[in-house]
Amino acid sequence: MTGKLYGLGLGPGDPELLTLKAHRILTSCPVVAYPAPDTGPSFARQIAADYITSAQLEVPIIVPMRVERFPAQDVYDQAAETLSRHLDAGSDVAVLCEGDPFFYGSFMYLFERLAGHYPTEVVPGVSSMMAAAAGLGRPLAARNDVLSVLPGPLDDDQLQRGIEAAGALAIIKIGRHFARIKALIERMGLVAQAGYVERVSLAEERLMPLAELTEDRAPYFSMILIYKGEERWHPAISQALGSGV
Amino acid sequence: MTGKLYGLGLGPGDPELLTLKAHRILTSCPVVAYPAPDTGPSFARQIAADYITSAQLEVPIIVPMRVERFPAQDVYDQAAETLSRHLDAGSDVAVLCEGDPFFYGSFMYLFERLAGHYPTEVVPGVSSMMAAAAGLGRPLAARNDVLSVLPGPLDDDQLQRGIEAAGALAIIKIGRHFARIKALIERMGLVAQAGYVERVSLAEERLMPLAELTEDRAPYFSMILIYKGEERWHPAISQALGSGV
Repeated sequence: MTGKLYGLGLGPGDPELLTLKAHRILTSCPVVAYPAPDTGPSFARQIAADYITSAQLEVPIIVPMRVERFPAQDVYDQAAETLSRHLDAGSDVAVLCEGDPFFYGSFMYLFERLAGHYPTEVVPGVSSMMAAAAGLGRPLAARNDVLSVLPGPLDDDQLQRGIEAAGALAIIKIGRHFARIKALIERMGLVAQAGYVERVSLAEERLMPLAELTEDRAPYFSMILIYKGEERWHPAISQALGSGV
Repeated sequence: MTGKLYGLGLGPGDPELLTLKAHRILTSCPVVAYPAPDTGPSFARQIAADYITSAQLEVPIIVPMRVERFPAQDVYDQAAETLSRHLDAGSDVAVLCEGDPFFYGSFMYLFERLAGHYPTEVVPGVSSMMAAAAGLGRPLAARNDVLSVLPGPLDDDQLQRGIEAAGALAIIKIGRHFARIKALIERMGLVAQAGYVERVSLAEERLMPLAELTEDRAPYFSMILIYKGEERWHPAISQALGSGV
């Protein structure tokens, strides 16, 4: 009997946003794997830290951070080989995933290597996009809105076409593209309908109208939401805007 | 001291897909409100049923089901008034929401009436869209894909433009539009890349390639995912397809 492979969505960062199911599986798997940068802590492990015990074997998957390039596939070949050994030995393996495993997540690289060979289950998680809308206090999308998710590395023409075509937008992976994207949103006359969210659901989260942000860079864990409908911001955000409610 | 209003995302249907946070708040609020049809059970209440006790006061919000029309706003005026009385009396109120409260959810109608008057928190939930991708075993979106969510009631031209413009699609609210949408996807040559998901995460869930489905209607809680990338289906789905892995 081989072990079972789980891809566990951990949600956006607050450890309380794990699902009951992810919590149960995480605390019952003898092997816990997670992506980690070559220097510094693993965000996925930080989210789950309170639930991992010393009885569990931890397997960091070191993914070198290279700006704007997709990780080398040999990292995942090697990780799949390591996890195979545990699965072959009959141990269940939980792979920790920030947010949701299949929403722009790297778990797909392990899934495509291992799911054909071992029983595999993906446990969906709360996406940072939903948490961002909750924090801003405006619908992500409603009624018959088209909602589009646009990765920030797309060029201005692609972004502009995407923004024009949808009623609601989430622009993700903004990082070093922030100033360019903000300028585009300003040119399109949509800055008043755009919200900025950074490290959502963590103690250091920042939620504000995009117009209020003065920096010209944004961290990796940030996004811009645009909602073209008339709904108001959360009262706390509106107050920060000085517009009242 | 007034009570606090919570919009609780319950996830797609499996009670174990509640977050730890939604579970904690749900089990500690003296008043639990939820949308309910005029006949039949409330799906939101069904998801949470195991966690509600007889010590809690239940407030069903009866939303008459009318095909293709947005609910009359006087339903929410009246519900807001009812919830206000409990909040004024100092009771915290949990409003149960299927999926995520701000992802095409009706909680926004209560939020816009009450959030300016009472402390309010929206707790994000697992969206059925993420659960559908997890079930099908293919990424919802990856790398620099544009992901678009298209409501089924849009007309063919709008749907076609949306499908052409994105690398990954979720078509929601398909219900009685199913046959028309499936025909459109066939004309666009994308049926082999489309998956069908019904009542995801529940015991009666159905997950299959769209091409396999022979009915010409779909229930309300169903969606179609299209992924234009090359990733394979989950081995269990591929097996059903007869394509092997």
